[in-house]
Amino acid sequence: MIFTSDNASGAAPEVLAALAAGNPGYTMPYGADDGSARVEAMLREIFEAPEARVFLVATGTAANALALATYTPPWGSILCHRLAHIEEDECNAPEFYAGGAKLTVIEGDDAKIDAAVLERVLGSEVSVHNAQPAALSITQATERGAVYTAEEVAALSGAARARGLSTHMDGTRFANALAATNASPAEMSWRAGVDVLCLGATKCGAMAAEAVILFDPAKAREFELRRKRGGHLFSKMRFVAAQMEAWLADGLWLRLAAHANAMAARLREGMAARGVKIVHPGTGPAANLFFVEFSGEQHAALQTAGMEYYASAADAEGRHSARIVASFATREEDVEAVLAAL
Amino acid sequence: MIFTSDNASGAAPEVLAALAAGNPGYTMPYGADDGSARVEAMLREIFEAPEARVFLVATGTAANALALATYTPPWGSILCHRLAHIEEDECNAPEFYAGGAKLTVIEGDDAKIDAAVLERVLGSEVSVHNAQPAALSITQATERGAVYTAEEVAALSGAARARGLSTHMDGTRFANALAATNASPAEMSWRAGVDVLCLGATKCGAMAAEAVILFDPAKAREFELRRKRGGHLFSKMRFVAAQMEAWLADGLWLRLAAHANAMAARLREGMAARGVKIVHPGTGPAANLFFVEFSGEQHAALQTAGMEYYASAADAEGRHSARIVASFATREEDVEAVLAAL
Amino acid sequence: MIFTSDNASGAAPEVLAALAAGNPGYTMPYGADDGSARVEAMLREIFEAPEARVFLVATGTAANALALATYTPPWGSILCHRLAHIEEDECNAPEFYAGGAKLTVIEGDDAKIDAAVLERVLGSEVSVHNAQPAALSITQATERGAVYTAEEVAALSGAARARGLSTHMDGTRFANALAATNASPAEMSWRAGVDVLCLGATKCGAMAAEAVILFDPAKAREFELRRKRGGHLFSKMRFVAAQMEAWLADGLWLRLAAHANAMAARLREGMAARGVKIVHPGTGPAANLFFVEFSGEQHAALQTAGMEYYASAADAEGRHSARIVASFATREEDVEAVLAAL
Amino acid sequence: MIFTSDNASGAAPEVLAALAAGNPGYTMPYGADDGSARVEAMLREIFEAPEARVFLVATGTAANALALATYTPPWGSILCHRLAHIEEDECNAPEFYAGGAKLTVIEGDDAKIDAAVLERVLGSEVSVHNAQPAALSITQATERGAVYTAEEVAALSGAARARGLSTHMDGTRFANALAATNASPAEMSWRAGVDVLCLGATKCGAMAAEAVILFDPAKAREFELRRKRGGHLFSKMRFVAAQMEAWLADGLWLRLAAHANAMAARLREGMAARGVKIVHPGTGPAANLFFVEFSGEQHAALQTAGMEYYASAADAEGRHSARIVASFATREEDVEAVLAAL
Repeated sequence: MIFTSDNASGAAPEVLAALAAGNPGYTMPYGADDGSARVEAMLREIFEAPEARVFLVATGTAANALALATYTPPWGSILCHRLAHIEEDECNAPEFYAGGAKLTVIEGDDAKIDAAVLERVLGSEVSVHNAQPAALSITQATERGAVYTAEEVAALSGAARARGLSTHMDGTRFANALAATNASPAEMSWRAGVDVLCLGATKCGAMAAEAVILFDPAKAREFELRRKRGGHLFSKMRFVAAQMEAWLADGLWLRLAAHANAMAARLREGMAARGVKIVHPGTGPAANLFFVEFSGEQHAALQTAGMEYYASAADAEGRHSARIVASFATREEDVEAVLAAL
Repeated sequence: MIFTSDNASGAAPEVLAALAAGNPGYTMPYGADDGSARVEAMLREIFEAPEARVFLVATGTAANALALATYTPPWGSILCHRLAHIEEDECNAPEFYAGGAKLTVIEGDDAKIDAAVLERVLGSEVSVHNAQPAALSITQATERGAVYTAEEVAALSGAARARGLSTHMDGTRFANALAATNASPAEMSWRAGVDVLCLGATKCGAMAAEAVILFDPAKAREFELRRKRGGHLFSKMRFVAAQMEAWLADGLWLRLAAHANAMAARLREGMAARGVKIVHPGTGPAANLFFVEFSGEQHAALQTAGMEYYASAADAEGRHSARIVASFATREEDVEAVLAAL
Repeated sequence: MIFTSDNASGAAPEVLAALAAGNPGYTMPYGADDGSARVEAMLREIFEAPEARVFLVATGTAANALALATYTPPWGSILCHRLAHIEEDECNAPEFYAGGAKLTVIEGDDAKIDAAVLERVLGSEVSVHNAQPAALSITQATERGAVYTAEEVAALSGAARARGLSTHMDGTRFANALAATNASPAEMSWRAGVDVLCLGATKCGAMAAEAVILFDPAKAREFELRRKRGGHLFSKMRFVAAQMEAWLADGLWLRLAAHANAMAARLREGMAARGVKIVHPGTGPAANLFFVEFSGEQHAALQTAGMEYYASAADAEGRHSARIVASFATREEDVEAVLAAL
Repeated sequence: MIFTSDNASGAAPEVLAALAAGNPGYTMPYGADDGSARVEAMLREIFEAPEARVFLVATGTAANALALATYTPPWGSILCHRLAHIEEDECNAPEFYAGGAKLTVIEGDDAKIDAAVLERVLGSEVSVHNAQPAALSITQATERGAVYTAEEVAALSGAARARGLSTHMDGTRFANALAATNASPAEMSWRAGVDVLCLGATKCGAMAAEAVILFDPAKAREFELRRKRGGHLFSKMRFVAAQMEAWLADGLWLRLAAHANAMAARLREGMAARGVKIVHPGTGPAANLFFVEFSGEQHAALQTAGMEYYASAADAEGRHSARIVASFATREEDVEAVLAAL
């Protein structure tokens, strides 16, 4: 019973089947295949953005770093939450791709950027001596399992835009955020002021596939060159495209995300009902992960039951901070077994 | 009948089957899965290098750029052939990953580095004003279809080592080179002085899988950090490992490469016998690609027959320079059809 | 009466005279001149560090960025105070020179790094996903006018060293710190665990001259190459050396610094006695700058008297935050005039 | 008698005097001083370019690297002569500042770019896989002492512009080129298609001062940020400005350059008349340096006479290749003494 991360799962059967279906015959390499074109067309329709340009890569770090670099000069700064994946978990990839740009961190509950703190940071005077604020990065859903509403995204991106910054969305769990809010893809992205969205499929059912959606097509050529220069242009791109196509077809992506969210909600509510302290997310819509504080007994019971998750060592009172992540592959019976063990 | 590139083919059935077989259940992410460990063990055995460290990535450009950066400081230079993929076809990826290092190009027939030219370049005095020569990069097989013998590799790497340079091998078609020479993997790599080999599976039957083999394990930690920082560490690494494992198992890789070489040889010899001028490779062992000069009539006949390949526009005498590439998937009947058309 | 910054002053007469004296005749370029050698010898003696290597540059930003890059890989992080010049005022130069490394900011009063916060940051677990902590940067004196004692420096560098980090000292006002504490140069640098010191002369009487002192000579060749690659190797280095030589000779540097400190102290104490609120530095030894909060009346009186300094716009209560900087060139009569105006 | 390089000389007396004259009092730092403004105004007038923006730095490598980076994206390539200073003698500074761009080298006599070779290189097809040609760099005068006519510059820059490239001029010896051709500053720069000129004063009488002249003011803000980020923004910029102002005033720069050229011409012609083989420059106008092949006897005689210059070891026939450089400070009596020694 694995609740360590959504990337411990394999791929959805539909995704794997698409790889096999896409294998026979010859195709044009490097994204000139028909499948890549179909993916762009699908995402334009899904996002109601007929001009958008779509580029596929295979990791979320690549997607984020390439997208941010397209909107941030080397002397620029990227404003993000202190707990953002780009700050905490990408080993300086954003700095690398953006040629030495700076990440400026902002606080806020549940890893959501606090609008007042953002305003204060944006209000600083900037001269030739300072990093030049260039981009705001919003993680949707956040690293603490919280989900911004479309209105919240619009408010943050609006504050950024008023000072000349662009807005990037790290959407590694964008599908989960949509499933949690019932916002449409357009409402949660470009209509809320997002300039570039990194739409992650990997954590939610693909093998290795991420779509970078540039709502401003004028950035496309630069992005293409950056992708190639980063070593992220696949020769047999048909296989990345096949994953993405299968994932998007017939709303599979949203069904998989809704399942993951539902499993997490069932766990979260069940644990709370059994006396577990829920730490994150606090209020508002929630995605497929949450953070708790287990008593020593609770932790021991779950370990005995075979539940796996990342937990801190016991603190002075024997309590453990832990992260619980459900995925598209989480089974209801495992959730029930976990709750029964408490 | 596609002879444009070996990357126009899909994946070998064994490779696809391995993806499906590897999908069920949970695994540790980011290369901590059992499959990744098995691949390292297999390559250590195949290369008779029990200390070697193996890191998987998904594109040849990533493999080359990461490997070169591990051996070249930003103020260094990389010596390579003027036609090397790293110089011609990677959109400055090596310069990017190596922090602004320089590529210094060297001439030689059939895209092989000329030993005398290399000696002359290595003989220049170097001061603080100059780029510091740091690495020699050898492409095996070359971009013109030629193959270095193990002795040739050893001579070049020896000259480099005598001046303090390391040797990188771009082995995107290393399997084809082995099949063409019957050298053992060890003979063609570390025994011939190669410090780091980028072993490409993608062009020869995988979907997207390349192994970077560091014969000096002391470089492993740096490489790991570079890979992550480049966005090339896959969360579901099990799928890259599964491809590589299937490709290596039971000598599949060498059989696929030998087939591609044989198809190219059949075509090359058949074309030569029918009056086509073979341009590259000149002499010596050959891999799965070659370069010709077609008369206008030859070109027209092949176009009519449906053969696809990259060709120049007609020159003043109506002749076309063309590249012909066979792959693991090339069918004998297509080769015969092409020859019949001449 | 200029108290905006110590860089609004010109150069000390001794420094200018040395330029003229050093002009006639031919010298070896690029630091191979006798003057550069004499400067290295002088600094080795002054710092009781016979193995140290000394490299001259012309700006503090260049000195800091080059020194930090020598101790921080591109995937590393540099720990510094949130208000450090390298974080706030160098337009991403450290990130640029260190190939995209990250600056991780730490809080503390008077722009001094808080030892407890440093311990907490150093205590975090580090994996391949994270920036790798590589260097601690201490500004001496700080951007708020405070001075670390040698014991404080040793405590911070010791904590860093215990986790494998090196220590860099931004000594743009190192002379002022020495004058404020009476510590010896060695006590305040390598004996306190500093690996590389950027000793600034520009703010304290030179025209444009900074010495980077590498206490570990093994880093020298890398530093030299980095300096050249950054465009900071002067052909007519004799003129940078002449400034530094004159500045160091016969303790001029410490006399100039002591004068600047004394002028600032006289102002600070005089202002406090006249009801001005002193904000920084709080306690402990102080350098040649301090921060105040002026009432509207105080500010107006000083403006009328012709005192220039950087001040915020009036807050809701009409008060102005302001920075006052004295320099080697500050005249006693100006200090008295300022105090008289209050 | 030093003929090794023009940077072995000190500074012209007028330049030194200006430093002293500019020292008293306070000025705004970081280029906001009146002297910097005057220099910009002077250069606008001298170059008949009222919109041009001027930025001062202190080394030629900084000037070149910053200027090239402003016109070359990281995925771009810079076309230059194989012997260009930016390729041979700047330790990858251009690649560093341009974020990993590539230098593509072109051949031509006397280190002048051959127009036909340039056309061929510019004629290559470019796809996402290639470095994107972005800038042409012309060294005026060349590293072999040759000088382009304004017409030659216009022809090269025109070919570049037709393919979308900008033109950079490394004018470390621009004054010598003007003195050699009697072209006006405007004719030799923007009227000949130059987008950015690095006008070097250091080699021709300054201490350390170079002006980057951006004929397109739209690039100014980016350049300013790049200069700061590179650590090349001097706090006491007044001293760089003072050098440049004195150097430009009353045509001093052209008089100094004309003297250096004349001394070189006298030497070159005198040596030729005495049987020395002149190697570079071949034909056309010449600057203040030239290359010869000395017989063993000639070399020995000059060594005995105390003439210093860079020379190769003796070849099989006892001959030495050598470079002779005159400077603004070269004395006629030394030239005569050298010729007498032959």
